[in-house]
Amino acid sequence: MTEERTLPVRAGVDLGGTKIQAAIVGPDGAVLGSARRATPVEGGPGSVAAAIASAAHDAARAASVALPARLGIGTPGSVDVQQGTVSGARNLSGFDGAVPLAELVARELEAEVRAPRVVLGNDVGVALDAEARLGAGADLASFVGVWWGTGVGGGVVLRGERWHGRGAAGEIGHVVVSIGGRRCPCGRRGCVEAYAGRRALEERARRLAARGTPTRLFKIAARKNRERLTSGVWARALEDGDELAGRLVDRAVRAIAAGAASAVNLLDVEGVVVGGGLGTRLGPEYAERIAAAMQPHLFRAERPPSVRVSHLGDLAGAVGAALL
Amino acid sequence: MTEERTLPVRAGVDLGGTKIQAAIVGPDGAVLGSARRATPVEGGPGSVAAAIASAAHDAARAASVALPARLGIGTPGSVDVQQGTVSGARNLSGFDGAVPLAELVARELEAEVRAPRVVLGNDVGVALDAEARLGAGADLASFVGVWWGTGVGGGVVLRGERWHGRGAAGEIGHVVVSIGGRRCPCGRRGCVEAYAGRRALEERARRLAARGTPTRLFKIAARKNRERLTSGVWARALEDGDELAGRLVDRAVRAIAAGAASAVNLLDVEGVVVGGGLGTRLGPEYAERIAAAMQPHLFRAERPPSVRVSHLGDLAGAVGAALL
Repeated sequence: MTEERTLPVRAGVDLGGTKIQAAIVGPDGAVLGSARRATPVEGGPGSVAAAIASAAHDAARAASVALPARLGIGTPGSVDVQQGTVSGARNLSGFDGAVPLAELVARELEAEVRAPRVVLGNDVGVALDAEARLGAGADLASFVGVWWGTGVGGGVVLRGERWHGRGAAGEIGHVVVSIGGRRCPCGRRGCVEAYAGRRALEERARRLAARGTPTRLFKIAARKNRERLTSGVWARALEDGDELAGRLVDRAVRAIAAGAASAVNLLDVEGVVVGGGLGTRLGPEYAERIAAAMQPHLFRAERPPSVRVSHLGDLAGAVGAALL
Repeated sequence: MTEERTLPVRAGVDLGGTKIQAAIVGPDGAVLGSARRATPVEGGPGSVAAAIASAAHDAARAASVALPARLGIGTPGSVDVQQGTVSGARNLSGFDGAVPLAELVARELEAEVRAPRVVLGNDVGVALDAEARLGAGADLASFVGVWWGTGVGGGVVLRGERWHGRGAAGEIGHVVVSIGGRRCPCGRRGCVEAYAGRRALEERARRLAARGTPTRLFKIAARKNRERLTSGVWARALEDGDELAGRLVDRAVRAIAAGAASAVNLLDVEGVVVGGGLGTRLGPEYAERIAAAMQPHLFRAERPPSVRVSHLGDLAGAVGAALL
């Protein structure tokens, strides 16, 4: 055991709007330890950086290893890798302008780690890299990732490498599935995310409930002490047979399926990997529903892609960040 | 001049449902001569092969060169390059099952060419290759091609190479722009082609005209001795301000734009190249309309792709076939 622990381990953190997930990854890609905490909603980038450092330390403790000097962070927003800054991370409170997140976290780590080095990457992008190397995409040369969460993110992996285009490729959540359709949180109309993102689903549910459509969604949230309709709330409502939840999630499935089928018709990839908060939570049953709803749109219907759920689940982002 | 003519030239033929276009291409990619004839609608693969050989000879004569031993053919349907066969070319009369087109054409050429060698490729694919190497895509590392004709074909060029996926990539005509929308000639619903393909446009125009919507489309076709609403007929009706034609083509533009914007959101390519019969005929004005209709759907609206018309136009397929 002592010998094993001297092998190089990697540390990664997935920074989300609601939680910070840290993981320590062994040389073979196995998760040796992990830790999670709520994302601070007060104190701005400084407290977020401190929480990231603490989560990383907790994960190292859970893995019984010393925290490595190099820490990868997957973050929402636009990342400038060279500068170590994040911009446009709207879900993180106080993240205005270009936040020097790498430097802030490095400073937090300095007390206990010698010469810490912090590397940033896009949250969905690193999660997809992890799935491509160690997870649901490891046996697929090419696939499309659909990260079904608060929004709908994604990515395109071609011959094992993420395709970046001019830097912003992979926006499967903003593939248009209904011209002139519903308004998306991004401001455009008819995007996949307008029907499938958790934020859009919640807005829709609130509006319909206010108009008198019966639903247990908000009671379940209250019972779980949640202000938001989290993935767990949706999962529970679906299990309970809540009609409104069922209807909205069916529609989300159809939107994701149309977007994924469009991507497959365009790229003829071997697979579709579904991840993200909702995707992971709803699991294989809903991946099958997505596959079934894709079928009538597939140009080569006789040879559908393999649709599967992220293997790394909630840890995909942290593992991917560790691989940065 | 004599010296120049001893340099290697290439011969290519674009086999379409209505016409056969042949071209002789010089070492620098310039078209030295071309010829066109109607695609035989009787006599099956044998007469089509004879017409291909004649068109190739005519093009060589127009270029004042001897027909090279190697002839490339771009054909609709599924191509088996090794076997030299074409299957599923529904627009070609008598093309049932796997047609050994390469062998049939080689036999026709034998009388005048020593040891002819015929190579097949997909019609839209070779046209895109030509645009990538010599045409509208030559200055773009990555682009999406939209071949707007009887159907809507296309392709994806990444870092200068066409992306094939599992062999069937590029079906931008079957990207879904309206879930549960209009029935497409492919049998599915809501595809780009359902709103934009010439066949779909014609069916729609016939139905609306039969219901009493006024239009000059069919009068223009009759005057041009056309049974079908060709690209020329549509172009003329638009010039004449025909309201129905305007309405249907506007809708086609919006569908193509939504599909192209989805492709750009997914792949973040630098450009969109519009070709095909209608695309080429309607030209830069309509490419600009497509660009404008893409704008509200683009995830990175501040950095739109360059939308441009095929440079090689009607000859793209023949030139691409010559490069095979």
